[in-house]
Amino acid sequence: MELKDKIRSIPDYPEKGVMFRDITTLLKDADALTEAVGQMQKKLVGQEFDLILGPESRGFIFGMPIAYNLKKGFIPIRKKGKLPAEVVSKEYSLEYGKAVIEMHKDAVQPGQKVVIVDDLLATGGTAKAIVDMVESIGAEVVSLNFLIELDFLNGREVLNGYNVNTVINY
Amino acid sequence: MELKDKIRSIPDYPEKGVMFRDITTLLKDADALTEAVGQMQKKLVGQEFDLILGPESRGFIFGMPIAYNLKKGFIPIRKKGKLPAEVVSKEYSLEYGKAVIEMHKDAVQPGQKVVIVDDLLATGGTAKAIVDMVESIGAEVVSLNFLIELDFLNGREVLNGYNVNTVINY
Repeated sequence: MELKDKIRSIPDYPEKGVMFRDITTLLKDADALTEAVGQMQKKLVGQEFDLILGPESRGFIFGMPIAYNLKKGFIPIRKKGKLPAEVVSKEYSLEYGKAVIEMHKDAVQPGQKVVIVDDLLATGGTAKAIVDMVESIGAEVVSLNFLIELDFLNGREVLNGYNVNTVINY
Repeated sequence: MELKDKIRSIPDYPEKGVMFRDITTLLKDADALTEAVGQMQKKLVGQEFDLILGPESRGFIFGMPIAYNLKKGFIPIRKKGKLPAEVVSKEYSLEYGKAVIEMHKDAVQPGQKVVIVDDLLATGGTAKAIVDMVESIGAEVVSLNFLIELDFLNGREVLNGYNVNTVINY
C-alpha cells in the first residue's frame, strides 16, 4: 500500500501558500491506519526505551497505539494550562507562531530513556522543545519518530545528532 | 489490577470544589495502560460497527489503540477550526462553559455504524454533541465507551436510550 495515496493534500491551509497534509483520510481507512502504525513501529525495532512521549493532539494518535503494542507507558505532552499537576514547560516557535508546551514534572524520571512520536516533522520546533524538556530533567531521547516529514522545512537540522525516523516524505 | 489506584485525584482543579481525575499517572504505567485499553475493548465484543470516533484530545488516547486492535478506521472529532476540509459542527455546553466540535463532512457515510470512545463521561455534553452530528448525517451510534464515569453528573441521562459503557466509576 502507498500510504501517500491515503493522505489528502489541501492547498492554502491554514494560510495561503501552505499545502496541508491531512491525515484524517488515512485514519478513517482501517488498512491504512494499520499500515501507518506498523511502519512507524518497525523503525523502533531494536531500540531500548522506557516511555513514549507524544505531543497534543496528533501525537496522541500515533503514540498511543505504538505504546500499547510495545507495552510502554505513554506521556502526553500538552499545551499550556492543560495538565493538572506540577509541570515543566518550554516556549518554542512553530510554523505559524509561538507556543508553550508542558509535561508533568513527575512524568519522566532522570536516567529514563524515551522515544518521541508525532504525526508530522515540519520545522522541528515542537520536537526540539520536547527534547529540551526531557534533557532538562536528566532523561535521554533515544529517537524521534514521525509519520510525515516535510523535507523543505529542514526540521532534521534542528534535531541534528538525534535519531530521527520518518515514513512519508514531501 | 485496580485501575482506580492508578488514577491521581487532584482537588480544586480546574476550579474550586472540583476533584480532577488525572489519567496521566495511569498512562505512564505500561501495565495499567494495557489493562485500561483491554477493559474498554472488552465492552465492544459482539458489537458490529465500521468506525471509532474520538473527541480531541483525550478521546484520541483511547480511541486509537482500540481502533488499531479491532482493525477499524478512526475519526478524530476536533475543536472548532482545526480540521482542514469541509466540516459539520455542533455547539454544546460542557462542564465548564461552551464549545463547538467539528467532524469532516466526508468522515462518516450515511448508514455507517460508529462507536464513540473518550476518557471521561462527565455531563455527557460532548458525547451528546457527537451523537447529534453522527445522526444528522444519517449514521448510527452503536455505543459510547468511556474509561471513567462521574456518576454524580448524570451524563447517562443525557445519553438515555444509547448503549453506554464505562470502566471506572466515581
